[in-house]
Amino acid sequence: MAVARLGAVCRERGPRDVATRLRDLSDWIADDMTGFEVELEKLVRDESVVNRSAHHLLDLGGKHLRPACVALATKLGSDFGPAARDLAVAVELLHSATLLHDDVIDLGERRRGRPTARLIYGNAASVLAGDWLLVEALKRIRRSGHHGLLARAFETLDEMIAAEAIQLENRGRINLNREDYFRVIDGKTATLFRWAMLAGATAGGLPADQRAALERYGTHLGAAFQLVDDLLDVAGDPRVTGKTAFSDLHEGKMTYPLLLALERDVSIRRLVERLLRMPPDEPLPLRLRARVHRKLLTTGSLRDCRALARRRADDAIACLAPLPDGPGRTALATLATVPVEREG
Amino acid sequence: MAVARLGAVCRERGPRDVATRLRDLSDWIADDMTGFEVELEKLVRDESVVNRSAHHLLDLGGKHLRPACVALATKLGSDFGPAARDLAVAVELLHSATLLHDDVIDLGERRRGRPTARLIYGNAASVLAGDWLLVEALKRIRRSGHHGLLARAFETLDEMIAAEAIQLENRGRINLNREDYFRVIDGKTATLFRWAMLAGATAGGLPADQRAALERYGTHLGAAFQLVDDLLDVAGDPRVTGKTAFSDLHEGKMTYPLLLALERDVSIRRLVERLLRMPPDEPLPLRLRARVHRKLLTTGSLRDCRALARRRADDAIACLAPLPDGPGRTALATLATVPVEREG
Repeated sequence: MAVARLGAVCRERGPRDVATRLRDLSDWIADDMTGFEVELEKLVRDESVVNRSAHHLLDLGGKHLRPACVALATKLGSDFGPAARDLAVAVELLHSATLLHDDVIDLGERRRGRPTARLIYGNAASVLAGDWLLVEALKRIRRSGHHGLLARAFETLDEMIAAEAIQLENRGRINLNREDYFRVIDGKTATLFRWAMLAGATAGGLPADQRAALERYGTHLGAAFQLVDDLLDVAGDPRVTGKTAFSDLHEGKMTYPLLLALERDVSIRRLVERLLRMPPDEPLPLRLRARVHRKLLTTGSLRDCRALARRRADDAIACLAPLPDGPGRTALATLATVPVEREG
Repeated sequence: MAVARLGAVCRERGPRDVATRLRDLSDWIADDMTGFEVELEKLVRDESVVNRSAHHLLDLGGKHLRPACVALATKLGSDFGPAARDLAVAVELLHSATLLHDDVIDLGERRRGRPTARLIYGNAASVLAGDWLLVEALKRIRRSGHHGLLARAFETLDEMIAAEAIQLENRGRINLNREDYFRVIDGKTATLFRWAMLAGATAGGLPADQRAALERYGTHLGAAFQLVDDLLDVAGDPRVTGKTAFSDLHEGKMTYPLLLALERDVSIRRLVERLLRMPPDEPLPLRLRARVHRKLLTTGSLRDCRALARRRADDAIACLAPLPDGPGRTALATLATVPVEREG
């Protein structure tokens, strides 16, 4: 079960009751997540490389955090019915579509502990597989009958593409400023969490003020999630994250710990420049990685990146104020602790 | 003006009155096509490589045949209003999105007489530019208020992706059968013409039987168009077509003339195998191309490919029977002669 998987990647050394609370959260939406997984499993399978590229990624599962957001938001209102299930599948397909295209764009090699679809089936198949999943997602959103959600999904996609465009434009440059950095993480991660919360809230029939509160919650949750993603790129265990260590940096992407370190210690600049110049198809030298990692520690950049993620998680929890007290609100508060505690 | 451009690529040696009829057609929708072009020109411009990739393709213009289909179908009913204009822009954006992704998939180098966007701005930018134009197209279809058209656009995209998948699967193989070949050209070309006709007919408020007739017309028109495209790949003048000669073959795609020739002369098989084995980044040797071209002539494959295109154009015209007589129907009959007469 997806949220159980999520719990498994959280650190033991989090607040003592995190594990218990995650189990409660997990129990509360267990049937809904099973329903989601059964529905996702119905996606057409055939022998074409395009279809296999898409299923290669989907079959590796992932954390299903965005569908869990849809389920949790829905359950604050009505039950998790067929329309909500369609929307949960849609958000996972949208996410997967962007991953397939991102891996082509970044020449990504590992994802969820396995070689990327593009390495197995080729770039061409991944481009088409991403297109296919995008269309499959949009069909389900349209079918849900919530037409406003489709318009918002288009806006979300616009923001995601714009963020990818900024990231591409700044690839290999170390002059990305904070403003651009936060625009990128909002576009590439927070916006889809925002949409997932809105989708669930809409399907659940929540009033406008609660829908807006949940969108703000999703924005902060997504940002916290991405900040920890940045952290794990340089400080995570690849056996847990399923990604190659330093892959963001290797792909020329500025991450928050690095941005902080560059502000605090000018001597890191030349080190990073060397790193960014390394050919994308060669592994980064271990010694160079170790030196960067040391700088991130001595400048306090890793610590402060995690601290900011924690603040954004707290901001997410604060957004829950307008919601009625109950298991739904408690579950969302628990979910907000996941990004900060996760190790993969 | 777009349809004037279309007229310019038609051969002088067509039926004597083709030029006159095309001028009439062109005059009849001139204001509508100008309205379409003004609207298309409003698409956001910025300095990012993603945006420039998209505009690089759009600025080269193309024949605007699909928007012309929307305009012609609309004018059979009501006038070409803002909703129809949005749909005309949408179909051109959908078409452009697929071209951007296709050029990444096929490593295409020339399009509309210029280097492809991916050669200038990179594959990554073209993937994102295609994603962006796809979303821009779908936003406009949603905004038109014809919700059925959005569902049909998703089906159209599904068919296009499935056709690209078959083509990718059979890349470099010479055993593509007729059934698969016709499925590919229906998916990659005819389906979007079909949708363009339906979009125009819907915006124009035509009754169901006329909408269905126009969809059938679009299917045949698109097939005729693709058959001539196949022909021009091996027999066209690159200065007129704007594409590298033999590029379909070089990309490992089976075309109709080749399929016919292989059925008729087994000796061509080894020649084609050699051609398909040529590295994609090296130009095809002139002598080899000349030998294939000779075989296509001696087997009558080029002649019969054009003859089939003409039959499909005639089929398109026959589909117009349920429509009331008048300038709209005449214009569509003229449009059906364009694929067969075109040289670029």
